[in-house]
Amino acid sequence: VQIAVVTFDGFNELDSFVASAIINRAPGATALLTTPAPVVTSLNGVQVHGQRPLEFVADADAVLIGSGIRTRDVVADDAIVSALPLDPGRQLIGSQCSGALVLARLGLVEDLPVCTDTTSRPFVEACGVTVLDAPFHAEGPIATAGGCLASQYLAAWTLWRTVGEAAAREAVHYVAPVGEKESTVARVMAVVGAQVGAQRPQPVG
Amino acid sequence: VQIAVVTFDGFNELDSFVASAIINRAPGATALLTTPAPVVTSLNGVQVHGQRPLEFVADADAVLIGSGIRTRDVVADDAIVSALPLDPGRQLIGSQCSGALVLARLGLVEDLPVCTDTTSRPFVEACGVTVLDAPFHAEGPIATAGGCLASQYLAAWTLWRTVGEAAAREAVHYVAPVGEKESTVARVMAVVGAQVGAQRPQPVG
Repeated sequence: VQIAVVTFDGFNELDSFVASAIINRAPGATALLTTPAPVVTSLNGVQVHGQRPLEFVADADAVLIGSGIRTRDVVADDAIVSALPLDPGRQLIGSQCSGALVLARLGLVEDLPVCTDTTSRPFVEACGVTVLDAPFHAEGPIATAGGCLASQYLAAWTLWRTVGEAAAREAVHYVAPVGEKESTVARVMAVVGAQVGAQRPQPVG
Repeated sequence: VQIAVVTFDGFNELDSFVASAIINRAPGATALLTTPAPVVTSLNGVQVHGQRPLEFVADADAVLIGSGIRTRDVVADDAIVSALPLDPGRQLIGSQCSGALVLARLGLVEDLPVCTDTTSRPFVEACGVTVLDAPFHAEGPIATAGGCLASQYLAAWTLWRTVGEAAAREAVHYVAPVGEKESTVARVMAVVGAQVGAQRPQPVG
């Protein structure tokens, strides 16, 4: 299972690396930093080489859109938007924080509420999308997370939906703090598990 | 306040980036990826450019030693070890997971117990160091964290000890999941606060 973690210039390291590092703990799942340029620079000035070009999103089993300080520029860039042919019919799709703006721009969340971070919230609402006071929400193949460390929920959901609940549980257990592993696993799996079975409402008529 | 986040080849992204990204949220604190080569490659194959050379550790106000799959090679490399002239008399010093091996190699934890991850534990114990079943421990200027996501405690402790408790609290609040901000802040500040006042035992005689 290959998961594209889409990472733009100005990215927040937490939003891309927490998800990718947790996913990569699971046997059978590979998260790959997917970038619009060979090198992207984080909001803190860290230069990182992408592992796949943006075209990889078409082939990935799951696509997670990261967050950063330039997401509003991203959604205004037709070249980037048209390079993201996401298909919820055959892919899992997730967003972290301001990544919800990209899902809104792509018309993927017209009929479902999303999670995003406090700063991005007014911009997401301006797209006509309902924002929840919650860290994580999923319906069918689409999941959104809000608040940098909610990326652990996005990672666990992605693993649960691709390589299974047990693999998700083991990956979270591995990365959890020593002495807090059981409580961390219980919290993460409860938040994610409440939504894994949720179905996206079907359009009427 | 400048904080060196020492990052070696084979590094775990969570261990370097969770700490650095949280620290960089606090006004007045700057975390910089400090590497023994211009580019280091993570355990998942992500290439990252260092922001400072290893020599920077001598000038930093705090030095956090990250973790990875090659830390045992690092502590066997006299050139790298001698390039880490850490001074607990004037610097805060912390380690994440296998980074405890580096502190042990430098003789910094001969008289205090440490936290480390489950995998590194036997190697740390083989150095004659006591390992705790806890995510975070600090005495005086030295702190250790175990389990990737315990890096949030290491970051909060570093901020608390440098730019203050309020700044630490605000940074954790910022990165916490939406809807879980108060509970996350309470948990992190309780774990860290229990140890901020702890003094390192003074040698007798």
